Amino acid sequence: MSEDLTYRRSGVDVEAADRLVARISGLAAATHGPEVEPGPAAFAGLYRLPGGDLLAATCDGVGTKLLIAREAGRFEGIGRDLVAMNVNDLLPVGARPLFFLDYVAAGALEAEPVAAVVAGAAAACREVGCALLGGETAEMPGLYGPGDLDVAGFAVGLVDQQRRPDPAGPRPGDRVMALPSSGIHANGLSLARAALLDRAGLRLDEHVPELGRALADELLEPTALYPGPVLEAPPGRIGALAHVTGGGLAGRGRAMLPEGLRMHLDPGRWTRPPIFGLIEGAGPVSGAEMAATFNLGLGFLAVVDPAAAPAWEGSGWLPVGEVRPGERGVSLDG
Amino acid sequence: MSEDLTYRRSGVDVEAADRLVARISGLAAATHGPEVEPGPAAFAGLYRLPGGDLLAATCDGVGTKLLIAREAGRFEGIGRDLVAMNVNDLLPVGARPLFFLDYVAAGALEAEPVAAVVAGAAAACREVGCALLGGETAEMPGLYGPGDLDVAGFAVGLVDQQRRPDPAGPRPGDRVMALPSSGIHANGLSLARAALLDRAGLRLDEHVPELGRALADELLEPTALYPGPVLEAPPGRIGALAHVTGGGLAGRGRAMLPEGLRMHLDPGRWTRPPIFGLIEGAGPVSGAEMAATFNLGLGFLAVVDPAAAPAWEGSGWLPVGEVRPGERGVSLDG
Repeated sequence: MSEDLTYRRSGVDVEAADRLVARISGLAAATHGPEVEPGPAAFAGLYRLPGGDLLAATCDGVGTKLLIAREAGRFEGIGRDLVAMNVNDLLPVGARPLFFLDYVAAGALEAEPVAAVVAGAAAACREVGCALLGGETAEMPGLYGPGDLDVAGFAVGLVDQQRRPDPAGPRPGDRVMALPSSGIHANGLSLARAALLDRAGLRLDEHVPELGRALADELLEPTALYPGPVLEAPPGRIGALAHVTGGGLAGRGRAMLPEGLRMHLDPGRWTRPPIFGLIEGAGPVSGAEMAATFNLGLGFLAVVDPAAAPAWEGSGWLPVGEVRPGERGVSLDG
Repeated sequence: MSEDLTYRRSGVDVEAADRLVARISGLAAATHGPEVEPGPAAFAGLYRLPGGDLLAATCDGVGTKLLIAREAGRFEGIGRDLVAMNVNDLLPVGARPLFFLDYVAAGALEAEPVAAVVAGAAAACREVGCALLGGETAEMPGLYGPGDLDVAGFAVGLVDQQRRPDPAGPRPGDRVMALPSSGIHANGLSLARAALLDRAGLRLDEHVPELGRALADELLEPTALYPGPVLEAPPGRIGALAHVTGGGLAGRGRAMLPEGLRMHLDPGRWTRPPIFGLIEGAGPVSGAEMAATFNLGLGFLAVVDPAAAPAWEGSGWLPVGEVRPGERGVSLDG
């Protein structure tokens, strides 16, 4: 019987990456003057302009979702993913997206894939009211092979103090509200590929009854865009906000909390998309590893004052749990 | 006898890339509201904040200079190149760099190359007074091979109206002032590799008498950082500014001019680094192709009022030519 599949066995060493990120953070901190404000570093950097405005900036790619796009020959969704991964990361610091830039590199600038990525990015930018301000298309024969490409995105937003979480953070009794994900988004694809393609032997073009569509269609479903529902959420004290990406629901939930508080999520309160059960069974992947890698159906989390929760629910947010005293972390137990 | 080597024959199709960029520009323009200001698109995008500040943003990589860094196993200079390629692009719109973000992607996050890139970037950021505000290190097994990596950078600056070129552009009789390059910078490396490695059969670790050092040392010399001399240049009307990158001295010079004006540069006024003669002879590469690909020793150009030119010269700028009525373009004839 084969061992459980983990993110690390799929080729991604999260702990080594964390050590490297800590080292890099030290190098970056040495360049920071008083204009740089501390913030939840996982999401966006914060820079105070001389005139007083506070800018937020993010940088992100779409990871190995690109490999699936390449095998399926479909790139338009990738541009949307790229915008989503970046503008969604602006929201936890209360920033409204202003502009976005993209980097697209390939061995040969095949017009169709590159134009598809940019067209998808432009459509997503329009949808969230953000300007596609520029970018770079780099042709690098010898670095990328035929059909290979990589993409990276950068977004800048303006912080709205009214939308910024309370620096004091979550309190016991705060409610956890969430927005559904549109599927796997652009995180954990290496583990998903290892489980579904390598271990279960599925093909990307294969119709999967549990999904009701081809595997490629499911895995390439673009990441949801959250600026609308987050920026238009009802007023009320916000303890913390999180875009559920690397580290999954468990990792991102934990990062929202101070020591001594625990987030209890009730899995009965939302629908877990069937792709996650498929991955879990195909690996097999443990429940803990699933929660530490994937969004499990919740793409964005907000910890809000109990008094504000009913209005948030009325605006389409799902009430999925509560913050209680306990060991810092996330329980999927209600 | 072999044909002359061109950038296109080295694997880079500049015209196809230009067509693609035009298509992408149309997609991007559809996302632009009144906040986006027109500007010299080759360099930086311009965005007006609600409070009135004008931001400039750039996105660039270092191209196939990475392949040379990989073969030589030396990455620290690449971080400096990445910062330079971006912050130098802010200067032609009169913007002072505020912050920079980097994207580093690899098949496996080998700590040393990634940390070397970031250390080089951090040192360059400190030197130009710019914060390294964040970034992304992406581990993508299956997309990048062992030892492969790619980098992209993104810089945001604040436009200083006093340093912004006159929107009316250059006038006949304006002087062309320049800053020396530190070598090949990060442009035209595909052509340089094709000429020097493939055609002339040189090795990267080979000592080249004309260069007085190993070929890798010359090709990996980091791009000069121009924020200091450009932002501290003496007052006076500026007709246009250019960072000499893709398109070379001829292409970037031409882009500074309106129809009916020609830039006459006197090659006797500056020292052309010997690397360019080596490439020209090894290809062989025509003089026109050399000028349309490389900086030829001038990394930054300013077209300034004749009355201001002596003060610029006193500040270390080289007086290299003049703008005169004629066919739009650049002559290397004095």
